[in-house]
Amino acid sequence: MEILAASENVRIERIVSRGHASPEDFWYDQDKDEFVLLVRGRAELAFAGKPDVLRLEPGDYLVIPAHTRHRVVWTEPATDTLWLAVHF
Amino acid sequence: MEILAASENVRIERIVSRGHASPEDFWYDQDKDEFVLLVRGRAELAFAGKPDVLRLEPGDYLVIPAHTRHRVVWTEPATDTLWLAVHF
Repeated sequence: MEILAASENVRIERIVSRGHASPEDFWYDQDKDEFVLLVRGRAELAFAGKPDVLRLEPGDYLVIPAHTRHRVVWTEPATDTLWLAVHF
Repeated sequence: MEILAASENVRIERIVSRGHASPEDFWYDQDKDEFVLLVRGRAELAFAGKPDVLRLEPGDYLVIPAHTRHRVVWTEPATDTLWLAVHF
């Protein structure tokens, strides 16, 4: 993870993952809204209380509202998955 | 241009250009800092008072500080150039 830009209210991060999964019992629970863009690769996200995973392809993005618990279920094992995240 | 997410302090935009150039005497002069990521395509930016243009390839990004006058000199004519911009 690399911080590309930041101010008092915003943090823009570049994240690279390969074959990554959050631990089964780990959930991100963030104080800020997060905009996530999948730039390269492929990934699946899960949200607490939701049975379905969300598959992300290049160009897909979403806003994860603050305190929406989520985890990374899967990213491509053989190539880097590149994300841009904006916490705001 | 499409606003993907926004809050009081931040605006996240998806911009698509094809064969685009700002008019010769037009400069963007913005009140906020802007983070720009070139996602797809190719582009060239110019900055007021700087003789060189900045060539952007996919994955290239920069922060344009508020009131740094700049313009788009060129984007690829035959394919869409996709930008992600965060005004913050």
